[in-house]
Amino acid sequence: MYSLLPNLRVIEAAAFVAGPTGGLYLAQMGATVIRIDQIGGGPDFKRWPLSAAGDSLYWEGLNKGKQSIQIDLARAAGRELAVALATAPGDDAGLFLTNFPVEGFLSHANLAARRPDIITARIMGWADGKPALDYTVNAAVGVPDMTGPVDGTRPVNAVLPAWDLLGGAWAAFAMVSALHRRRATGEGAEIRVPLSDLAATSLSHLGFAAEALLHGDRGRLGNDLFGAFGRDFVTACGARLYLVAITPKQWRGLVAALGLGEAVAGVATGTAADFTADEGARFTHRALLFPLFEAAMAARTLAELGPALDAAGVTWGPYQTLGQAVREDARLFTHNPQFQTIAHPSGLTYPAAGPAASLAGEARGAVRAAPDLGADTDAILADVLGLDSGAIGRLHDAGLVA
Amino acid sequence: MYSLLPNLRVIEAAAFVAGPTGGLYLAQMGATVIRIDQIGGGPDFKRWPLSAAGDSLYWEGLNKGKQSIQIDLARAAGRELAVALATAPGDDAGLFLTNFPVEGFLSHANLAARRPDIITARIMGWADGKPALDYTVNAAVGVPDMTGPVDGTRPVNAVLPAWDLLGGAWAAFAMVSALHRRRATGEGAEIRVPLSDLAATSLSHLGFAAEALLHGDRGRLGNDLFGAFGRDFVTACGARLYLVAITPKQWRGLVAALGLGEAVAGVATGTAADFTADEGARFTHRALLFPLFEAAMAARTLAELGPALDAAGVTWGPYQTLGQAVREDARLFTHNPQFQTIAHPSGLTYPAAGPAASLAGEARGAVRAAPDLGADTDAILADVLGLDSGAIGRLHDAGLVA
Repeated sequence: MYSLLPNLRVIEAAAFVAGPTGGLYLAQMGATVIRIDQIGGGPDFKRWPLSAAGDSLYWEGLNKGKQSIQIDLARAAGRELAVALATAPGDDAGLFLTNFPVEGFLSHANLAARRPDIITARIMGWADGKPALDYTVNAAVGVPDMTGPVDGTRPVNAVLPAWDLLGGAWAAFAMVSALHRRRATGEGAEIRVPLSDLAATSLSHLGFAAEALLHGDRGRLGNDLFGAFGRDFVTACGARLYLVAITPKQWRGLVAALGLGEAVAGVATGTAADFTADEGARFTHRALLFPLFEAAMAARTLAELGPALDAAGVTWGPYQTLGQAVREDARLFTHNPQFQTIAHPSGLTYPAAGPAASLAGEARGAVRAAPDLGADTDAILADVLGLDSGAIGRLHDAGLVA
Repeated sequence: MYSLLPNLRVIEAAAFVAGPTGGLYLAQMGATVIRIDQIGGGPDFKRWPLSAAGDSLYWEGLNKGKQSIQIDLARAAGRELAVALATAPGDDAGLFLTNFPVEGFLSHANLAARRPDIITARIMGWADGKPALDYTVNAAVGVPDMTGPVDGTRPVNAVLPAWDLLGGAWAAFAMVSALHRRRATGEGAEIRVPLSDLAATSLSHLGFAAEALLHGDRGRLGNDLFGAFGRDFVTACGARLYLVAITPKQWRGLVAALGLGEAVAGVATGTAADFTADEGARFTHRALLFPLFEAAMAARTLAELGPALDAAGVTWGPYQTLGQAVREDARLFTHNPQFQTIAHPSGLTYPAAGPAASLAGEARGAVRAAPDLGADTDAILADVLGLDSGAIGRLHDAGLVA
């Protein structure tokens, strides 16, 4: 972790991917992130993937470096504690991240009544409050209908919850942005981050939505890169690579590395296309170009190709399974300084990652594990709410905290 | 756009998706984002999708609400102008976003020599500076090998550049966070956001990497949701829906809405599983459960199912193509207040989106179009660099700006 946000205190009451991801990103940049956990764990405390002993690798991945207080949120007095934590005073506090419903005891209005300058960020499904998850939003915006083999008839769902991850980053970004305003004007903010709007706005920003409106649906392209040159190819030794060339420089490098200058020039003459200057022409005429590259790749081994492609500055990558990558890929996992091998709440010791962004020239700091549930309950009650040991003991006795 | 960052001035020299996305997010939260464009447009100015006239819907989607100055970056005097802009004084300036190479005239060291407290954010491919794109990184971390039909043998690439989008959000988040530190301590920061680290860290946070390390590769699951209940199903009228049930409440609602209580109880008895309490059991025994849901869905039309699923609080979504969604879906596109119909640099008028996050109770403000290339050249030279009209005229005469 880094210390860009060293004094910030964020209260998180969140499950599923997006909310905890936002809290994780804030913690990785130095904020103190306090998770309010239902006693015994919230709805995602046992989410798959699990360890052999049944502990959630997912939960302990998403909650690294946070603190945990266990509260019985089913009882009014427990809910009051949660509200008190979220609204506790301090210039660097009053930041609340959640996926609890818009209405209810953790509503913005309810919290703002206690602390008018509070900044809340709420991950939502649909913007109108109806339930949605990454998978259902993705189905609704048509990404599965664009994914997979050209002749496929069944939509292909994404394995990666991209809207969730983006939602976490957006929540973190919007919260620290709102804090800039609060420091200038004293105003709080109610930030809402619906997965449905993340999807719709992203497809607008990328031009996908305008394209669909103006030209109709793109259809499935298999692994072909839309609008330039890119696809998977198989080498003589059976390795599969993704080759891509978008800029003129990338294209020239690729054609030269594979010795295809003459053959590509022939296609260019036949089609009156300028493949170097016009990246789109490489897509338009890919049925003519791809066979040349298939043959060139099939005639070379990965051992020959790798250095040649690198020397030519080609953008390419081998396909690996994640298992291969985590065990063998030095740049991604085994020697990536992002990763530190630490002990987790599951009792297992394995490598875990720090923040995606690096601050060059600054110490990365330790990657800290997720907390045990309630690991910080007493300290939080004392430090944030100012309770003495007697009051804390009574909360334990009443079963309100653990 | 909102005004959380009203006085910020960010200089952007970036192409491809991630860098411009980060600048877009900053602009949407109120920053003034000045794009340095190569005269005639940088490497992605004509990227697909295109309008019928050949203008890039992609470029004008990603650069909404920014200003543009055209500079000849191939000449030393043009490069000097770019450095001067990035390092121009001001407490709310000195923020530079780029995907230019780590070394070179826009290196952090070069800029910090001019303005020691500059905050740079640099989107990269591999963390070591080697080229990579979303597609090649994705191939390397194994996502395409987990995607697609169970019996598929060819990897299935993602259509959505998730690492790029996440990189944009991370760059924006990290820049705004670094500005908090600079305001407190005066320190600048060199932020590096490699796509390779975005992928590796995300798969760590989600537990995928630990799972692969501890248990090996997950393999392809088709459209089955890993670790709980979820899949696509087809109705009597031929509609395809994604149904998902993760929490006990979602599961109870789904089973009740489809009248499957007794049948599911039978499977539970036969397998000794508690499908309500143990979401993972729904995945483990999905070969027994899915046929019940297939039959129930095939016996009902969407018109019957939709209200019943909604009433039971089920999380579900219809599959649509993006074309259907942009033309017909009120919540996502046609009546989504995120979208405003505006004129774009292509000359076309179509709906475009504001920020993914909403500030409840605050005016959304206008969605502003992308600039024409060089639309703000003279104003920027005057306002940021303090040049008089004579000096600006000489730069034009020399072909250094346009």
